[in-house]
Amino acid sequence: MRPFTNLIPFEDAKRIVLENVKPIEDVEEVNLLDALGRVLAEDIISPINVPPFARAAEDGYAVRAEDTYGAGQYAPKEFKLVGEINTGEYKEIKVGKGECIRIATGAMLPEGADAVVRVEDTEEDGNIVRVYRPVHPGFDVAPEGEDIKKGEKILAKGTILNPPKIGALAAMGIAKVKVYRRPKIAVLPSGNELMVPGEKIEKGKIYDVNTYTISSVIRENGGEPIIFPFVIDDKEDIENKLMESLKYDMVVFSGGSSVGDRDMLIDVVSKHAKILFHGVQIKPGKPTWCARGDKLIFGMPGFPASCLNDSYQFLGPAVRKMARLPPKKERVVKARMARRITSTLGRMQFFTVHLKDGYAYPAYKTSGAITSLADSDGYIIIPANSDLVEKDEEIEVHLWGD
Amino acid sequence: MRPFTNLIPFEDAKRIVLENVKPIEDVEEVNLLDALGRVLAEDIISPINVPPFARAAEDGYAVRAEDTYGAGQYAPKEFKLVGEINTGEYKEIKVGKGECIRIATGAMLPEGADAVVRVEDTEEDGNIVRVYRPVHPGFDVAPEGEDIKKGEKILAKGTILNPPKIGALAAMGIAKVKVYRRPKIAVLPSGNELMVPGEKIEKGKIYDVNTYTISSVIRENGGEPIIFPFVIDDKEDIENKLMESLKYDMVVFSGGSSVGDRDMLIDVVSKHAKILFHGVQIKPGKPTWCARGDKLIFGMPGFPASCLNDSYQFLGPAVRKMARLPPKKERVVKARMARRITSTLGRMQFFTVHLKDGYAYPAYKTSGAITSLADSDGYIIIPANSDLVEKDEEIEVHLWGD
Repeated sequence: MRPFTNLIPFEDAKRIVLENVKPIEDVEEVNLLDALGRVLAEDIISPINVPPFARAAEDGYAVRAEDTYGAGQYAPKEFKLVGEINTGEYKEIKVGKGECIRIATGAMLPEGADAVVRVEDTEEDGNIVRVYRPVHPGFDVAPEGEDIKKGEKILAKGTILNPPKIGALAAMGIAKVKVYRRPKIAVLPSGNELMVPGEKIEKGKIYDVNTYTISSVIRENGGEPIIFPFVIDDKEDIENKLMESLKYDMVVFSGGSSVGDRDMLIDVVSKHAKILFHGVQIKPGKPTWCARGDKLIFGMPGFPASCLNDSYQFLGPAVRKMARLPPKKERVVKARMARRITSTLGRMQFFTVHLKDGYAYPAYKTSGAITSLADSDGYIIIPANSDLVEKDEEIEVHLWGD
Repeated sequence: MRPFTNLIPFEDAKRIVLENVKPIEDVEEVNLLDALGRVLAEDIISPINVPPFARAAEDGYAVRAEDTYGAGQYAPKEFKLVGEINTGEYKEIKVGKGECIRIATGAMLPEGADAVVRVEDTEEDGNIVRVYRPVHPGFDVAPEGEDIKKGEKILAKGTILNPPKIGALAAMGIAKVKVYRRPKIAVLPSGNELMVPGEKIEKGKIYDVNTYTISSVIRENGGEPIIFPFVIDDKEDIENKLMESLKYDMVVFSGGSSVGDRDMLIDVVSKHAKILFHGVQIKPGKPTWCARGDKLIFGMPGFPASCLNDSYQFLGPAVRKMARLPPKKERVVKARMARRITSTLGRMQFFTVHLKDGYAYPAYKTSGAITSLADSDGYIIIPANSDLVEKDEEIEVHLWGD
C-alpha cells in the first residue's frame, strides 16, 4: 500500500486543478435556436441597420410634418389620401405637399413623408383626411438604425447567449453563430465489480453509479461526457484506455475500490503524466489524485459519495473554466444544526444535511452510500481544524440546487 | 381600433395566466443519462438491496471476529490463509474457525466471516496471517442493504433529478425512468413583415426576433418550443394555424404589429376561446392579451422588447408550472440609479438597466428595440403609482441571469 505522504489542503488541490485546465479554443457553428447558454466565439458586428428602414411607430397617416403646422382641434388641416402602406409592404409611392398615405405600425415610411399623424388625431372622409393636431418632423417615426447601426459591434466574443442576446442576433438576420465547443470529458469508471444499470446483477457485483453522477455534473456545467467502457484492473487495459482518453479535453477516472487497484492505476498513469497530488485533506475524498500529461487526469475515489463530492468541488469548476462559463453562483442558506455532529481533525469535511423547518439534519451515512447525497439538500463545511458542530449551532448550508 | 377598456394590473394578469395552465400529466421514459433536470413521474421503490451483499469496507482479511479476541500488539493471533477474494469476484469459499481469506475493499464477504481485519493490523507469512488487533463482529463490513433497502421508497414522484438522485437510481440498477413530458408550446410569430434570419432581407421587411426569444425562454424553463411558419394577416390563415396549434399544451402568438392586425387576430381567437384579458398595466407590454379555449392562448405584442418582457414575466412562470418545476430563483442586487428616469403613471414599468460599479444605467430605448434588452443586465420595477426614480436613489435590479 502506498501511503498518502503528502495530503494537501482542499484549497491547494482546487487551485492546482484549475491552474491545469484552460479554456477551450475550438469553435463550432450552431443554429441560433440551439445557441442558448453557449459562449460566443466571435465579435458580432451588425451587417445591417435595425430597423433597416424608417418606419411608422403607430397606425396613422404618413405626412410632411410642415403641412400639419397650425392644425388644431377646431381647425383641422385637410390632406389628400393618395395611398396605403401595410406592414411588410414596399410601394413606390410618394407623399407630396398636402398629401398623406395611410400607414400601419411597422410599415416603411414612404418617400417625401417625415412624420406620422396618429389615427386618433384624424378623421377620414372619402379621399380627404382631416388632421387635428400638428406634428414635428420625426414624430412617431422610428428612424433607420434606431435600434442597431450597421457596422456597430453588438456582442463581444465570450458573451454567454441568453434570450435577449439571441434576440439581438435574430434582429440582425444572423441565423448561425460561432460558439466555443463544449469541453469533452472522458469518463472512465474503473473496477472489476461494476455492472451497467439495467443488466441483471451477478453475485459479487454492484451497479456503476459514478458514470452517471460524473456525467451529470459535467453536463450541468457545460461539458459533454464521453463515457468509456469499464476499466478493468489490468495494466494493459488501463494503458489502452488512458491513451484513448487523452484525445479528449480532460480525463476522469473513478475507482478502483481497493488500494491495490488504485495503486495500479496511478502506476500506469504516472508513466505518462506527472502526478500533481495524491491525497487531499477532505472527507469524503481523501484518496483523490490528479495528474497532468497532455491533459489533466483526475482520479476520484470509487465510493459514490466521495466521487460525487469530488465532482462538485473540483470537476464542476474545472469544466466551467474550460467551457468559459463564470463560476457557479452558489446558494447558501443559514440553518441550525439539529443534533451534535463530530468530524475528523485535519480534514475539511463536506457533511451532507437535509433541511426541515430551519434545522439541518445529518444525511451522511458512509462514503459508499449514494443516499448520503440523494437524501440531502446540500452540505455544510466543517473546517479541518474543527471536530465538532454543536446542536443548535448556526451553520451555513450550501444547496445542491436543482 | 378596439380600445383597451379593461387594462388589468400586472399581478392580476400573472395570476390569471398561472390559474389557467396546469401541470403536464403525460409521462415518457428516458435513459438515466438523459434524465438530468427532468421531473420524476413515478415513485421509485428499490428493487434490490444496495450493496446487494455484505462487503469489505477496507483491504484486509475476512475472519470470524471471535477468533481475534485477545489479540494484541505483542500477542498476535495466527490464522490460516485459505483463499483470496477480489472486488467483483464471487467464490464458493468459507471461513472456518482460525481461518482467514484475503479480501479487497468492496469484495463480497465470504460465508462464515463476520468481520474484516485491516491489512495494517496484520502480517502475512506464507499461508499464515498474524493478527495484532481484535475486532468486533461487523468491523469494517458494510452490511447488505446498508445504503438502500429492497422495497424502500427512495425517490418520490415529482422529484427533480439532480446528480445525487441520478446516482441513487444507478445504484439500484435502474437504467430508464418515467418522467413527465416537457410541455410543448406552439410559437406563432405573426406579421406580413417578417423574414427568417439568414434570408436576404426584402424592402419593407424585418427579421423575426420573437420566435427566437420566446423559444429560448421556453427552453430555459423546461419546455419545448414548437415553431410555426409565420401567421399572415388573413382570417383563414390565422384560423388554420390556431386549430393546428391547439394540439399543443399552450399557444403563444406574437404580433401583429398594427392595431388592425391585432384586432383581426383577437377576433378569430375569440370565436374559439374566451378572452381572459386584453391590456395590462405594464410597460412595455400594454397590448398583451390572453384567452382560454381547450388550452391557454397567449397574445404578446410584436415589438421585441415588449414580447421578451412578457416572456420573462408570464410565459416563463407558466411553462415552469406546466413542467412541474419550482418558480425560478431570481437574483436581485442592490444598486444606485446613475441618472434620473421618468416612468408612466398607472403602468408598472420594467425598466432595463446595465450595471457598472454599483450604478444602474438605463438600457431601455423603445419597446421595438431588442438592444434595450441585449445590452442590459436586468431590470428595475417602477411601480404603477410612481413616475420617477431619482439619481442616486437605491434600487433593486432583477438580473436576467445566464
